[in-house]
Amino acid sequence: METKSSSPSSSSSSNAEQLTKESDVSEETEAMKKFLDSLKYDQNGLVAAIAQDVDTGAILMQGFATRVAVQYTLEHRKACFFSRSRKQLWCKGESSGNFISVDSVHVDCDRDSLIYLGVPSGPTCHTGAHTCYYKRVDGEDGLVGAAMTDGRHKAEEALTTLYELEATIEERKREHVKEGSKPSWTRRLLEDPALLCSKIREEAGELCETYEKNEGKERAASECADVLYHAMVLLNVQGVEIADVMEVLRNRFGVSGVEEKAKRSPKTKLIDPTTTLKK
Amino acid sequence: METKSSSPSSSSSSNAEQLTKESDVSEETEAMKKFLDSLKYDQNGLVAAIAQDVDTGAILMQGFATRVAVQYTLEHRKACFFSRSRKQLWCKGESSGNFISVDSVHVDCDRDSLIYLGVPSGPTCHTGAHTCYYKRVDGEDGLVGAAMTDGRHKAEEALTTLYELEATIEERKREHVKEGSKPSWTRRLLEDPALLCSKIREEAGELCETYEKNEGKERAASECADVLYHAMVLLNVQGVEIADVMEVLRNRFGVSGVEEKAKRSPKTKLIDPTTTLKK
Repeated sequence: METKSSSPSSSSSSNAEQLTKESDVSEETEAMKKFLDSLKYDQNGLVAAIAQDVDTGAILMQGFATRVAVQYTLEHRKACFFSRSRKQLWCKGESSGNFISVDSVHVDCDRDSLIYLGVPSGPTCHTGAHTCYYKRVDGEDGLVGAAMTDGRHKAEEALTTLYELEATIEERKREHVKEGSKPSWTRRLLEDPALLCSKIREEAGELCETYEKNEGKERAASECADVLYHAMVLLNVQGVEIADVMEVLRNRFGVSGVEEKAKRSPKTKLIDPTTTLKK
Repeated sequence: METKSSSPSSSSSSNAEQLTKESDVSEETEAMKKFLDSLKYDQNGLVAAIAQDVDTGAILMQGFATRVAVQYTLEHRKACFFSRSRKQLWCKGESSGNFISVDSVHVDCDRDSLIYLGVPSGPTCHTGAHTCYYKRVDGEDGLVGAAMTDGRHKAEEALTTLYELEATIEERKREHVKEGSKPSWTRRLLEDPALLCSKIREEAGELCETYEKNEGKERAASECADVLYHAMVLLNVQGVEIADVMEVLRNRFGVSGVEEKAKRSPKTKLIDPTTTLKK
């Protein structure tokens, strides 16, 4: 796909200076030439290029890249493509400002498809959606009509398991519970954070017990799922997204755990003594 | 990309019956026709199709699909493509047996690219790798040479944050710690599961306190990251992968939490009293 250059929010501010130019790449080094030569371009000189969110794994968009687009991406660390409709080099974000910073580039076994793995600075799609794949084909409300939802959240967007769970928790929060009917377990936890916190402490203990009591791998995976699910409900209560947690983890990669712990500001600073609860 | 039909492990068992045939799709319903008509096929009658692991978010492979390949995928719930080299319909797994079961199909805003979101039954790549994107272009050992690793695990595979963390933990386990030098925090936890379990209980408590003491969103994300990291170290100790945890979560989607809790077998069954530890 490609984002339209006439994004309503930015067309007024776009100008020729912002456009990606072929002259913006360096003279090819030997290593760069060897790599670019090794790709299998199709009859139009293109390879497929998929931009993927490094934190969530969401596929943001898929386009095609010429030799120079690949080089531009590697040198400028921004996802760059070739617009087949406008027949020109095109850097995602050059008109909207929503660039995709590229952490790493991966090539497939056939050398005709690339992953640009990185961090989007805003919505990728020209419609304002997070990803261009915001429409499900085969869902209940979808185009083909065969429901495959199995009682789970009916996401239009291509959500992987963790994010589908997050969306399901959000749906439980929003859904209307009929008077007299039993609310879902998630809803009960959302409405009773004291119960939720006691469950988080309990589940963490149970996860430890899978090791301490040698309960086996299956139980360990199950208890870890319990911890993760309950933690995610508490994140929802606090308006935090699991993507925020991933970002924290990513930003810690560059620092050793020992250094990272030493660098943190003392926790007491953040605690308002007037809100301290008895345990 | 496309997997070679001559996979060494399966070529002897492959036969004409296993090959995907165009006649294996139904007569188009009106909804199916409307959808298939709506896609923007290129001059060769193809749209891009990306197979993605629903649990891990890993991009498994990218190929191209004809109209009939898309219909086959939607009807048979198996990722199906058009082999450009063999010029024929090709269902991933028809020769290797490693199919990709498709949970849902998503279309992009330009209607020329699809995501097949699903569960692979084995390695996707003909090389035996989990995904076809097992080669990093710009890593330290990569093809272009510019290291962008920032002290983190230098994955060749396109790993998103959670899986890069998992790979980093595994690397800490395997790395040789020189006599007299300070091991990493992860290594210390791996070697001292009693310390690790006490940290998991402590971090779970600290996550709860972000709510109980109103410590704010940033602290909540940070404490949840701590819980997740420590839990993942314990998974590593027990030989469990985070993908196993995702599978547990996915399999729970179809069941309400209340029903799911009622269905579980009593925990005491799994506990060997001789291994029960004092707390």
